[in-house]
Amino acid sequence: MASITASYPWTTTPLIAGAPMRLISGPSLAHAISAAGGIGFLAAGTDVSTLSENLSAFKSLLSASPIPGTSSDVLPVGVGFILWGADLKLSVQALSELQEPPAAVWLFAPSSSEELASWASGIRSATKNKSKIWVQVSCVADAIEAATVAEPDVFVIQGADAGGHGRYSSAGLISLVPELIDTVLSYNANRGNASSPKFIAAGGIADERGVNAILALGADGAALGTRFLAAEEAVIRKGYQDAVLKAIDGGNSTIRTDVYDKLRGTTGWPKDYGGRGVINLSYADAVSGVPFEENEKLYKLAEESGDQGWEAGSARMTTYAGTAVGLVKKVAKAGDIVKELRGEITVKRI
Amino acid sequence: MASITASYPWTTTPLIAGAPMRLISGPSLAHAISAAGGIGFLAAGTDVSTLSENLSAFKSLLSASPIPGTSSDVLPVGVGFILWGADLKLSVQALSELQEPPAAVWLFAPSSSEELASWASGIRSATKNKSKIWVQVSCVADAIEAATVAEPDVFVIQGADAGGHGRYSSAGLISLVPELIDTVLSYNANRGNASSPKFIAAGGIADERGVNAILALGADGAALGTRFLAAEEAVIRKGYQDAVLKAIDGGNSTIRTDVYDKLRGTTGWPKDYGGRGVINLSYADAVSGVPFEENEKLYKLAEESGDQGWEAGSARMTTYAGTAVGLVKKVAKAGDIVKELRGEITVKRI
Repeated sequence: MASITASYPWTTTPLIAGAPMRLISGPSLAHAISAAGGIGFLAAGTDVSTLSENLSAFKSLLSASPIPGTSSDVLPVGVGFILWGADLKLSVQALSELQEPPAAVWLFAPSSSEELASWASGIRSATKNKSKIWVQVSCVADAIEAATVAEPDVFVIQGADAGGHGRYSSAGLISLVPELIDTVLSYNANRGNASSPKFIAAGGIADERGVNAILALGADGAALGTRFLAAEEAVIRKGYQDAVLKAIDGGNSTIRTDVYDKLRGTTGWPKDYGGRGVINLSYADAVSGVPFEENEKLYKLAEESGDQGWEAGSARMTTYAGTAVGLVKKVAKAGDIVKELRGEITVKRI
Repeated sequence: MASITASYPWTTTPLIAGAPMRLISGPSLAHAISAAGGIGFLAAGTDVSTLSENLSAFKSLLSASPIPGTSSDVLPVGVGFILWGADLKLSVQALSELQEPPAAVWLFAPSSSEELASWASGIRSATKNKSKIWVQVSCVADAIEAATVAEPDVFVIQGADAGGHGRYSSAGLISLVPELIDTVLSYNANRGNASSPKFIAAGGIADERGVNAILALGADGAALGTRFLAAEEAVIRKGYQDAVLKAIDGGNSTIRTDVYDKLRGTTGWPKDYGGRGVINLSYADAVSGVPFEENEKLYKLAEESGDQGWEAGSARMTTYAGTAVGLVKKVAKAGDIVKELRGEITVKRI
């Protein structure tokens, strides 16, 4: 079976993807990841109004710093959509206007399987099947639903350790990756489907050891979010980035919750999704029974204070990050992070 | 640095340990695992009154079926204690009477760091330092506490995916193993401690892929519980074992909760520990607000019905299992399971 890198000819094994983190994964980060032989994703998120602009910015970066191995069919980048919130019609229109569509489109959090099906067929048709369809799933049941209605080219297997939004009910990659792969392959074989989907693991990976582990589990590559929060090219407040560098022991120091969605006024996530982030005073106050209005007022004050809103001891601002946050210890160029993840740059650990 | 198997001379690389599952891990299971080149653990649990009897039974099995490579200093087996509930004095007494103490003692869930320290020194003294001290930890903070007060020979790193009891706040092995190892090694180096602890990963591992993954993460070996629930030698009700074989998609189908402790009348677990088990009517009723007395009555009726208490659709009985439960598909001899985990027996997957 062909390696996953054959579909993205500028990439190097093992495949490293930069997750489309809403508001954070912009053209510079995506370009730097792809330029290092990974695949960067632009976050379209829920608001697709900036999609064309971001793709243009990516193309400008590409003209200035071409990426060897790029084909003329597709742009060496992906785009991520949050399906319950993004406008399918506008997205399809933006993509169909492109001579070179993105090499991959990453679909996440549909509000129904019909919605997932519409997106997969809409994107395939808009891009004349040039964009590979990646579908993010966080349990075996999700994967079988996706296999049925969308026949993904790539399943992004999101484990419970992932930062940001994901299902409350999920398993870690250690058990999820092998069971999900076995079940999808067996399901496809049983219904005579000869497609050969690929599997990318995400959630809790932050260094070369995590990448090697998910390869041992049977995945074809790794996607990372938290590690790229500490990339020089990430669109991120310094306070947030510093809080990520300081956090340790992610099983204790992070939690999956809807507290931050509520405080930020982000409504619309399906009820079985929460965002994993670093525990701070906002969360502590919410669980200790501080009335919402009071907690929200304090949140807005923290927001107005800028980077101080993340200051240790008094932090209240949302700090989405996965349990691997304790492995993220320094800011680096995204390209060097990709090379570290592939083991091409040795990292001193103790 | 010497391989971990050097300390347990009858074992084979990669080291496979059978977790000391309370009531389930008896002499036959432990002997079968050790005889296959792993290390079996007897569950002393919280009630140590049967410890001497179980060790005698193990010795009888060993006389009947000797294990090559066994030294004359120690028995080729471990014993696991649940510290908040087990009696230290009785345990130390039982161990000090043995000419050949167990090769390892696995300490779990102390109610304080003083308690952990007393157990570690008590066991070392009772066994003249012959029994290696294994300490189970489920976050980085636990590990540093253990390094400080008990200097474990082996850290058993328990990830969030583990079945049975563990901390509610925990991360999956994918991020926990590398951060915990880095932190402990660096902590020991900084205080001039020249000991070379080993690291065993547990939680979510059920086949060769999981074992290879935790080795890639830096662990020295794997401990498994859920997989051995489907060993022929496990002391387990058929209803329970069948429920394990049937369960799939562990991130969805299992949950860490104190519902089953309450229904079984198991009191004493520190409040930050819950047991991960398969979700059934007992749990569904508890969260949907059925009064405890009513739920308890239904539980006792289920208990009286024997294996029917686990029947799909009407199951109410406790079914502790980890998220890897979906990878457990058949009952096998424990020795063959050990060989499968080491990759010596190839398993057909789809």
